[in-house]
Amino acid sequence: MILYDFLPSGNCYKIRLLLARLGLRYTRRDVDILKRESRTPEFLALNPNGRVPVLVLDDGTALAESNAILWYLADTNSLLPDSPLDRARTLQWMFFEQYSHEPNVAVARFWLTEQPEMTEDQRRALPNRQQQGRDAIGLMERHLADQPFFVGDRFGLADIALFAYTHVAPEGGIELDPFPHVRAWIDRVAAQPGHVAITDAP
Amino acid sequence: MILYDFLPSGNCYKIRLLLARLGLRYTRRDVDILKRESRTPEFLALNPNGRVPVLVLDDGTALAESNAILWYLADTNSLLPDSPLDRARTLQWMFFEQYSHEPNVAVARFWLTEQPEMTEDQRRALPNRQQQGRDAIGLMERHLADQPFFVGDRFGLADIALFAYTHVAPEGGIELDPFPHVRAWIDRVAAQPGHVAITDAP
Repeated sequence: MILYDFLPSGNCYKIRLLLARLGLRYTRRDVDILKRESRTPEFLALNPNGRVPVLVLDDGTALAESNAILWYLADTNSLLPDSPLDRARTLQWMFFEQYSHEPNVAVARFWLTEQPEMTEDQRRALPNRQQQGRDAIGLMERHLADQPFFVGDRFGLADIALFAYTHVAPEGGIELDPFPHVRAWIDRVAAQPGHVAITDAP
Repeated sequence: MILYDFLPSGNCYKIRLLLARLGLRYTRRDVDILKRESRTPEFLALNPNGRVPVLVLDDGTALAESNAILWYLADTNSLLPDSPLDRARTLQWMFFEQYSHEPNVAVARFWLTEQPEMTEDQRRALPNRQQQGRDAIGLMERHLADQPFFVGDRFGLADIALFAYTHVAPEGGIELDPFPHVRAWIDRVAAQPGHVAITDAP
C-alpha cells in the first residue's frame, strides 16, 4: 500500500497510527500541501478533492477521507466493534470529529504553526475557532469522566480519530489543563501497543 | 423510535428519507433550533453536542450525527454494500459531505432562508461559502458523468447523504444549471420507491 502523507497533518497521522498498530507495511509518499502538491493533476487523479491522506491499495484503488480509510483498514482487519450499535457510536464520534472538532482544533493549529503569517481574516476568526475547539474538547471531557475510551470500554477507531488533533491542541493555542480526563485518556492511548508519535515517519 | 427533527434541516431529512424507504414507523418530535430548543438541558441529555437529528431507539439509546444514524439503520436493515471497499467508498462520500459540502451548501441556505437577517460576518463570508459549495457540487458532477449513483452503480447511503442538501442548493444561491449530471441524478434519486420530499412530515 502507498500512503500519500503530510507529516504534520493529524488526518494523515490517524492512518500511520492504525497501520503501525496493525503492523502493516506501506510506502510513504510525502505530499507538501504548503507547496500545493495536493493540487497537481497527478494528485487530483487520486483524490479530486485535493486533500491528504490518500491510501492506494495493492490493486491500485485510491481511498480518501481519513476516517473512511480508518474504517476500511479496521473492516478488513477484524477491528470493528461487534455490535451495530457500537459501530454506529464509533461513527458518531468520527463524524463529530470531522464536523465539530477538526475544523476548529486542527485549523487553529494549522494557522499558528504551518504558515509564515496569518491573514487578516484568519486573525479575526482565530479566537472563535479556539473557543469552538475548547467546546468540542469539553464535550469529550464529560464523556470520558466515567469511561476509559470513547466506545464500549475498548480502545478503537473513535479514539484514533479524536487523538490525532486533540493531543496537539496546545499547538493551536488550546491548552489541555482544564481537561484532566482528556489528558488521562491521551496517556492511555499513547500507552497502547504499537503506538507511534505524530512526528515518526516509518 | 423517536426522531428529534427540524423539518427544514437536510441532516434531519436524510433520516426521514431512509426511514420512509425502509417503511419503518417512528414518532417525530419537532425541535425548533431557531428557538434554541436543541440547547435545552433535556435535549443536551440526548445529544451533548446540541444538534439535530437525534434518533432514540426502542431501548432508549440516543444516536446523533445524521450519517452515523443512516449507517445504523442501513447496518440493521441489510442495506450496506457487500464489500469492504464499497462500504469505505460510501463513508468516503459521507465524510466528504460533512466536511466539504454541508458547511458550504447547507450553511449558505441556512443563512439565506432560516434567519430574518444575516449578520455582517455572514454577509462577508457568504460568497466564499457559495463558491466552495459550487466546488463540492462540481466534484460530484464529474463523478456522476459516467455512473448513475455514487457507489457501485446502486442507490445507497452516499446518495441519501448527498441528496439532502444538494437538491435545495439553489435556496442558498447555488444554482444547479451548470451541473446537468447532478440534476439527472437528483431526478433518479427522487424516482426511487418510497421517496418523500424534504417538506413532507409523516
